[in-house]
Amino acid sequence: MKKDWKQDFILNHRVARLATVGTEALPHIVPIVYAYDREHLYTPIDEKLKRVGALSLQRVRDVEANPHVALVIDRYSEDWTQLAWVQVRGKAEIVASGSRHAAAIALLHEKYPQYQTMPLDERPVIIIEPRRIVGWRAIEK
Amino acid sequence: MKKDWKQDFILNHRVARLATVGTEALPHIVPIVYAYDREHLYTPIDEKLKRVGALSLQRVRDVEANPHVALVIDRYSEDWTQLAWVQVRGKAEIVASGSRHAAAIALLHEKYPQYQTMPLDERPVIIIEPRRIVGWRAIEK
Repeated sequence: MKKDWKQDFILNHRVARLATVGTEALPHIVPIVYAYDREHLYTPIDEKLKRVGALSLQRVRDVEANPHVALVIDRYSEDWTQLAWVQVRGKAEIVASGSRHAAAIALLHEKYPQYQTMPLDERPVIIIEPRRIVGWRAIEK
Repeated sequence: MKKDWKQDFILNHRVARLATVGTEALPHIVPIVYAYDREHLYTPIDEKLKRVGALSLQRVRDVEANPHVALVIDRYSEDWTQLAWVQVRGKAEIVASGSRHAAAIALLHEKYPQYQTMPLDERPVIIIEPRRIVGWRAIEK
C-alpha cells in the first residue's frame, strides 16, 4: 500500500471509532484502541468493557453476521483549519488464537503500555482488512 | 428525558462520530459537529467537506435510504480510568428549510463561533431523534 499521509495518520493516532452493522441494518459505533501494521488493523475485545456485557459483544455479533465495518480516525481542533480524518472501510473477522492473534496481541501490547496491567493474551481480536482508505484535511499539506 | 451524566456529556462535548448505513449494509462513519437540545441532535451538511464531493454526500444518501444512525461521543485519555463514551442510536432525517431547520441552525451558530465565517443558513441539517442512549465510564462516578 502506498505510503502517504493517511498511513502516518493511522499509525500516529491512539483512538479510532468503529462502526459495525447488525441485523436490520442498524449501525453500532464505539471508540476503540487499535494497532496497525500497514496491512491490517487490530482491535482487542478487552476487559475495559466487561461491565457492559451485551454491549461489549454487540460488535462481535455484528461482525459475525456482517463483516463489513468502517472506522474513522480524526483530529478535532477548535481551529477548523486543523481538522482532518481518515476513514477505513474493510472486512473484519474475529480471531481468538493462532499466529495472527499472537502477532496482533504483541502489536497492541507494544503500542499501549496500559495493557501491562490488563493482559490481552486470552482476548479475541478483531482483524480488519482495509478495502478502501479515504482521507480529508481542511488544508491540504 | 431524564437528566443524567450522559445528557451533560452530550451537551458538553464538541465533536461526535456518526455512523450511517448505506445499501448492502455497508457502514460509513465520519466525525461531525452537532448541537443538542435534550430532544434531538442536529448536525449540518456544511462547507467544510465540500472538496470531497461524493463522500460528503454519502451520509445524506445513506440517511435517505436508511434512517437508522448511531453516533458516539467519547473522551479518550492515556489514563484509561478516564475513558468514557455515550452512544446514541436513533432515526435521522434531512431537513433543509422551515422552523425546525431555522432552530437547528441557530443552535449550531450558538455552539460553534467558527460558523460566523461559514454561514449555515442555506445548508441542510440532519436531525436525529434518539431512540436509545447508552453510556459507559471506566470509573462509575
